[in-house]
Amino acid sequence: MDWERPMTGEQVFETQGNFAERVRDSVGRQTVLSTMGVRLVSVAPGRVALEMPFHSDFTQQHGFLHAGIVTTALDSAAGYAAYSLMPERASVLTIELKTSLMRPARGALFRFEGRVLKPGRTVMFTEASAYADDVEIAHLTASMMVVQGREGVEG
Amino acid sequence: MDWERPMTGEQVFETQGNFAERVRDSVGRQTVLSTMGVRLVSVAPGRVALEMPFHSDFTQQHGFLHAGIVTTALDSAAGYAAYSLMPERASVLTIELKTSLMRPARGALFRFEGRVLKPGRTVMFTEASAYADDVEIAHLTASMMVVQGREGVEG
Amino acid sequence: MDWERPMTGEQVFETQGNFAERVRDSVGRQTVLSTMGVRLVSVAPGRVALEMPFHSDFTQQHGFLHAGIVTTALDSAAGYAAYSLMPERASVLTIELKTSLMRPARGALFRFEGRVLKPGRTVMFTEASAYADDVEIAHLTASMMVVQGREGVEG
Amino acid sequence: MDWERPMTGEQVFETQGNFAERVRDSVGRQTVLSTMGVRLVSVAPGRVALEMPFHSDFTQQHGFLHAGIVTTALDSAAGYAAYSLMPERASVLTIELKTSLMRPARGALFRFEGRVLKPGRTVMFTEASAYADDVEIAHLTASMMVVQGREGVEG
Repeated sequence: MDWERPMTGEQVFETQGNFAERVRDSVGRQTVLSTMGVRLVSVAPGRVALEMPFHSDFTQQHGFLHAGIVTTALDSAAGYAAYSLMPERASVLTIELKTSLMRPARGALFRFEGRVLKPGRTVMFTEASAYADDVEIAHLTASMMVVQGREGVEG
Repeated sequence: MDWERPMTGEQVFETQGNFAERVRDSVGRQTVLSTMGVRLVSVAPGRVALEMPFHSDFTQQHGFLHAGIVTTALDSAAGYAAYSLMPERASVLTIELKTSLMRPARGALFRFEGRVLKPGRTVMFTEASAYADDVEIAHLTASMMVVQGREGVEG
Repeated sequence: MDWERPMTGEQVFETQGNFAERVRDSVGRQTVLSTMGVRLVSVAPGRVALEMPFHSDFTQQHGFLHAGIVTTALDSAAGYAAYSLMPERASVLTIELKTSLMRPARGALFRFEGRVLKPGRTVMFTEASAYADDVEIAHLTASMMVVQGREGVEG
Repeated sequence: MDWERPMTGEQVFETQGNFAERVRDSVGRQTVLSTMGVRLVSVAPGRVALEMPFHSDFTQQHGFLHAGIVTTALDSAAGYAAYSLMPERASVLTIELKTSLMRPARGALFRFEGRVLKPGRTVMFTEASAYADDVEIAHLTASMMVVQGREGVEG
């Protein structure tokens, strides 16, 4: 048996300027992240990790984190993974996202890891995984648009 | 030219017991909704509408509502639309959701309408639309699981 | 109760040049459609309908049309709906698609109706429904890229 | 920096009976695969690989494999990965699938690798990647239903 190279085989991506600083700045302006208690824990070319402690303000009717809140953090992780590879004055918008909710979002500490599957000039393909206390609970794929020269849409 | 019946043709769905009260009760237990300022404005068999005023706590880096927050409300609208058709002791879990972000989530009042496309004993197919001041900004499709007899997962 | 305007409210779209002829020409070059016995039955601005008789060559293990074959026709219907609104020398590529398989694809005659939800200069949001003998069996949403000036990618 | 375990970390899955033979039998009954020239090249617990040589019968208007044909093979690879973990008399149906079309489906030999992300009694979460001459061109995620005791739906 002979499987193809692992589907998450490490790619080497090119970045422009101080990508890590640009990501940190933009994360700082994404108010929903501070509202949710999310912090940026790692940035690398095409990869971003966020963490969030459990908080009952963001739960659904069974006391777990709401699927949409998990999606919010996954989308930010994936979006900033894409943003880390973009030109200096570009900004990122999500075209569409899909989240698979594999297990209940139950736990004390949540981690969200985003990663670029395929960069591009106009569209970047990304994925992200959510972990609750190190167990994978959800997976997102999203298409991110590279926006350039649009007034009022920066970072 | 001869188009098929409109894709959102009205279907008549069966409900069990006091479905509207069950939906209202469960919405009341979904803490994230009150955190976000979302309120339930309509329930009908297989349809639910929610509303949310803009609040800067839930914005992304350009000052619009974050895609994940829009998804949170869309998922709740779709999930409760499904829940309105479920047996009395069942509960609803999202299997997966996809959101298409058609326009920036910019506006003063947001409305989220969920609707069942196809009910089922195990899986219900749903969709939901988000409107910002009456302009459609986003669309979700989601598969909802009908969960029965699982301890700690009710409503 | 006061629902938002129907989610498939008719929009009026602008077209350029002889859009219907461009769609027919491109359909004629999409070899997979003739292989599958699919024919174009309607074109309107932002809408396209295709039909396909059942053929056992395209079935899965239970004798129904394969989900991927249903997706092929849905994607073509949605893609040509988008193409009908594009500039004369543009071409269309699918960025991503999602299909919800609501009922088994069992029937004698299949119909696929695609429609643009939101046009755009770079990305168009579309949806499509599949009917087996007039019963809706599947639903697709897809993001379509408007490609201009790329050698070897026309129509 | 400290990334979570690789997102495709190898899991060990339980199988029942002669899973490989059940997969081969069912692949043999999936007529669309022989129509498309697809053959089964590997089966392991929760993993399946298929291969298909290029054939112009299945192309879109630019001469590449149609996105829906790529999706057909990806869905089969993912569905059989799920099926390999199912009880002996169960059958598999796709609830929904999403395909990201990362690069044009241009090449001589296509390979499709499916894999279970999370097994389950009712729903299995899967993903699959498509390679054209060893370059990843597309990625699918799909939810698969485990169907038991439904007349006429076996394998």
